[in-house]
Amino acid sequence: MRDVAVVGIGMNKWGELWDKDLRDLYVEASLLAIEDAGVDHIDSMYVGCMSSGLFNCQEHLGSLMADHLGLTPIPATRIESACVSGGIAFRMGFMEVAGGFSDIVLAGGVEKMTDVSGDGATFALATACDQEWEAYNGITFPGLYAMIARAHMHKHGTTREQIAMVSVKNHKNGMHNPNAQYHLTPSVEDIINSVKVAEPLNILDCSPITDGAAAVILTTVEKAKELGKPIIRVIGAGQASNTLALHNRSDLTRIQVTEDAAKMAYKMADKKPEDIDFAEVHDCFTIAELVIMEELGFVERGKGGAAVEAGETDVGGRIPINTSGGLKSKGHPVGATGVAQIHTLVEQLRCDMGECQVKGAKIGLAQNMGGSGGSATVHILEAMS
Amino acid sequence: MRDVAVVGIGMNKWGELWDKDLRDLYVEASLLAIEDAGVDHIDSMYVGCMSSGLFNCQEHLGSLMADHLGLTPIPATRIESACVSGGIAFRMGFMEVAGGFSDIVLAGGVEKMTDVSGDGATFALATACDQEWEAYNGITFPGLYAMIARAHMHKHGTTREQIAMVSVKNHKNGMHNPNAQYHLTPSVEDIINSVKVAEPLNILDCSPITDGAAAVILTTVEKAKELGKPIIRVIGAGQASNTLALHNRSDLTRIQVTEDAAKMAYKMADKKPEDIDFAEVHDCFTIAELVIMEELGFVERGKGGAAVEAGETDVGGRIPINTSGGLKSKGHPVGATGVAQIHTLVEQLRCDMGECQVKGAKIGLAQNMGGSGGSATVHILEAMS
Repeated sequence: MRDVAVVGIGMNKWGELWDKDLRDLYVEASLLAIEDAGVDHIDSMYVGCMSSGLFNCQEHLGSLMADHLGLTPIPATRIESACVSGGIAFRMGFMEVAGGFSDIVLAGGVEKMTDVSGDGATFALATACDQEWEAYNGITFPGLYAMIARAHMHKHGTTREQIAMVSVKNHKNGMHNPNAQYHLTPSVEDIINSVKVAEPLNILDCSPITDGAAAVILTTVEKAKELGKPIIRVIGAGQASNTLALHNRSDLTRIQVTEDAAKMAYKMADKKPEDIDFAEVHDCFTIAELVIMEELGFVERGKGGAAVEAGETDVGGRIPINTSGGLKSKGHPVGATGVAQIHTLVEQLRCDMGECQVKGAKIGLAQNMGGSGGSATVHILEAMS
Repeated sequence: MRDVAVVGIGMNKWGELWDKDLRDLYVEASLLAIEDAGVDHIDSMYVGCMSSGLFNCQEHLGSLMADHLGLTPIPATRIESACVSGGIAFRMGFMEVAGGFSDIVLAGGVEKMTDVSGDGATFALATACDQEWEAYNGITFPGLYAMIARAHMHKHGTTREQIAMVSVKNHKNGMHNPNAQYHLTPSVEDIINSVKVAEPLNILDCSPITDGAAAVILTTVEKAKELGKPIIRVIGAGQASNTLALHNRSDLTRIQVTEDAAKMAYKMADKKPEDIDFAEVHDCFTIAELVIMEELGFVERGKGGAAVEAGETDVGGRIPINTSGGLKSKGHPVGATGVAQIHTLVEQLRCDMGECQVKGAKIGLAQNMGGSGGSATVHILEAMS
């Protein structure tokens, strides 16, 4: 297996982008990544996207994007796994380079969620849960995560305030991210008093509906050296699956799929949770970040809330989490999110994060997730000196 | 790169399967493949599916199917590239085993196209063409292939009768395929007098709307020997992209993406068109088979019609094509089609095809295609003695 590095990153300003369509978004982010990498060609590409069929009446995205990037006839493949479509697109790109099938691979993700056709975003997003067992019965994602929150509060004594603190922290970090959808600084009180979505979660606990894309360029470490780029190596790549339906899980306070993906990544990287300097995780809802911290082994099970309250996950804390602003502030164009996490890891490892730079950051972890925990990826990147 | 073999195959009886849902279909085919292979575990899996979001209000198929197969927490990834979703799922499985990431991979494809939600099959299928430049303007796939047919007739003198002969041949072969949707033996006259769809193509020139799934098991040649299975090796794997929109192509009589994918596969296999003993190709419309034969190098450009008329592509001919019955007779559950082609290649190479057995078949080729030629895969399999 060849050593693989990320040599280029690109993303657009995320938000409600009424003047841009699906292909504009992907092409824009990809061109930024290609320019950043300084490569003169691409051998193969992946497009992570959850539901362009329902949102945009457009499937067949691999070739569509290859064409609009002027990259045909290279292999171009769309990956779908709900909100971890981007994370898996990145893992496929990693395997293609590591396995020696291609030398330079573009892995991007995109979702155009506003100004769309069909029955709206909530309907399309619900296709990530079990349609026959969950969605047809009226459940939506805020409702599923609200149940996880309630169970976590009940079992571990997690407080409503601790859950809200995830949003406070992530919005604070997002203030320094020029690409973030929201530049706000809500207080714990603002969050607890914001519009109710599904008890106990309010609107300021939920990631938004977003248009956006992100892209990265993967190549061999050898080629990265030739390009004269900082060597940001992919040292761990994990992916796992679990039942889509929340009611099938044995413990509502767990998101087991994250632990399974993390095990694979830690093993490949030969690292432990305490070796990780910072992480980007899938805070689609505030409660998710707490559970994920526990699944990744950053804190003991049930101690996520206390760790956030103690500032352990702040920039400058023991294990800074979501220094980009996370899904909460940055936005959550579902297919793009997993790739944008890699974008942030590379920025941190290049020491390009400005106010949110984690001092001495050498090893970062990205955790991306689909549905209420039906699928996940965990990637570990290391800056080589 | 490790040598890879196909050691298990499975598919259901295809058709209008009113009593089976999306997951039933995939699980059924996969269990048959697992049983055929005799493996005791699966390391990773792929699900090729074009548009389960629009057809079934269900995305996130990787984990859904892993769960219903009892295979969680293995990595499970859905691949989408319109009608070549299955072909790419197979190629991803091949790369994962060849690259040493997994030892035993399940690659399957599925589509549930009848008894579905939404705006119907024609609407969903049109998302494989360029929605903004083609579908919004009213074009459908029969219309696109009708233009290809007209151009081919005009440029090369291909006759209406020659085009119909593709359907005659494929239906004749399909009579011996117990899994085929249609067991009919239409004559050239029947086809030319059948209901008009898009001049010059009639209903008996078009592949049908189908529910179905197919699955195969990939492993190393080494492991295949341990299992005591016939060694059917994957010696070539190619994939290519092209513009989705037909009007962007320089020549309407070409489906360039097939030539590009074939070049990659022939090069990897170190084979030429004349080394191929038989092929399964993507006859979504009769005219497609003629153009594909030309792109694969089986006949000179423009001579596809004459070759079919001369019986060169019959069982027992120089280069038998679609001995399974092809998409025309077997049916075309779009995400499953590419995997079912591999199923037939393996059956032929195991000498299990009965009446449609190609005598002395050692090397088979499968060509799968998305849209009007926006994407394609070509795989070459060889029986090792």
